[in-house]
Amino acid sequence: MRNLKLTIEYDGTNYAGWQYQPRLPTIQGILRDALAKIEDVSPEDINLVGASRTDSGVHALGQVANFVSRRRLSPNNYRKAVNSLLPPDVVVKLVEEVDADFHARKSARGKKYRYVILNREYPSALQRNRVYYVPYRLNVEAMEEAIPHFIGRKDFASFQGSGSDVRNTVREITSFQFEREGDLLIFTVVGNGFLKQMVRNIIGTLVFVGMGKIHPDRLEDIFEARDRRRAGPTAPPQGLYLVEIFY
Amino acid sequence: MRNLKLTIEYDGTNYAGWQYQPRLPTIQGILRDALAKIEDVSPEDINLVGASRTDSGVHALGQVANFVSRRRLSPNNYRKAVNSLLPPDVVVKLVEEVDADFHARKSARGKKYRYVILNREYPSALQRNRVYYVPYRLNVEAMEEAIPHFIGRKDFASFQGSGSDVRNTVREITSFQFEREGDLLIFTVVGNGFLKQMVRNIIGTLVFVGMGKIHPDRLEDIFEARDRRRAGPTAPPQGLYLVEIFY
Repeated sequence: MRNLKLTIEYDGTNYAGWQYQPRLPTIQGILRDALAKIEDVSPEDINLVGASRTDSGVHALGQVANFVSRRRLSPNNYRKAVNSLLPPDVVVKLVEEVDADFHARKSARGKKYRYVILNREYPSALQRNRVYYVPYRLNVEAMEEAIPHFIGRKDFASFQGSGSDVRNTVREITSFQFEREGDLLIFTVVGNGFLKQMVRNIIGTLVFVGMGKIHPDRLEDIFEARDRRRAGPTAPPQGLYLVEIFY
Repeated sequence: MRNLKLTIEYDGTNYAGWQYQPRLPTIQGILRDALAKIEDVSPEDINLVGASRTDSGVHALGQVANFVSRRRLSPNNYRKAVNSLLPPDVVVKLVEEVDADFHARKSARGKKYRYVILNREYPSALQRNRVYYVPYRLNVEAMEEAIPHFIGRKDFASFQGSGSDVRNTVREITSFQFEREGDLLIFTVVGNGFLKQMVRNIIGTLVFVGMGKIHPDRLEDIFEARDRRRAGPTAPPQGLYLVEIFY
């Protein structure tokens, strides 16, 4: 028996998110089906642990998962075998043998996400499921002024998606970078952990800052309020990419 | 009556190419339907001239077309109106009023195409319909050595797709640039005109050079032979982008 670590890229457009749900297309479900064929067991017997429960429509460049394999295939041949069984919108980039105590979620020390906004007067045909299209004129300087307020160890309760039962809402964002590439606004966020929809709620708040609906000076009040209704809306999923998990 | 010039972006994945064909989804057909609604005429009454007949699966960042409008909408409002009637994989980027004698195809002085190859051991989920995935190890130095052979005024008969009845197969490529971005090989070709599938046949030949199946020294013989069978295969459509038309 070997503990195998998978690094996975996917286009989240046609999936109901990472986590398995009966009768819905999910990344975890489709991977489990493919692994079960290779392992010659039923899908329920594959305990596939994912690092991050990405929402429906969210993409991944480097999701990580692990499971116990009984096959003797080399990691490289395992990758080829599983990719031959997956649809083209889910690809295993790397298979590695890891220590028995490696756990994709519990062993994770940090995560990197990217969020991409397209800001111009007309949408993009080629990027339509890859970016958040914002047609309004954004005050990018105000958005840049707002970014440092999100960096550091803070209580992100006002940026937690509803329906979450997490008690400790303190998280640390260690890096929050912003760059402009033509009409694209690209945000890269690194942190030790993220609450439900936290990145999308931060981006929605930044867009409100860019639209002049929230002044950067008000952000500390919003943090202190610990009230989801005080922050901006949840930015849509298709602009979000899970880039990397750190171990 | 005004002659309107449209600049169009599209994702060619779900279309049978630019040119109208009955009972098939085409870019020209879908645009004509949208314009006919705005003009309040039947689609057959819209004479929509396109600059380039892109093949099925080929994308465009800057296709150009023109037609005669009887509406008094401003160019900006015309763009909004037509985009509201188009599916999300076809977007009009710009509407401009042009001289009556402007003809999208006949007035064109040159075109710029881009071709993108993904060269690594596993495919891409996010880019699957946007690049030509080549899993073989390519000799990029040999490919770079081959590129200058395609620049200049030459007879491209060996690189013309079959089924074309063009007699004069001399064309001029004025610029052919190559750049590497991680696993991506990006080729940008500018010329005064292109034969049917000419870019895809050149790229297929360059991939054969990279695989060691054609030596760069043999390229001049292949040009002289004026025989399609001597060059490499036709690279697939999804890596090709019509970037710009020059007037």
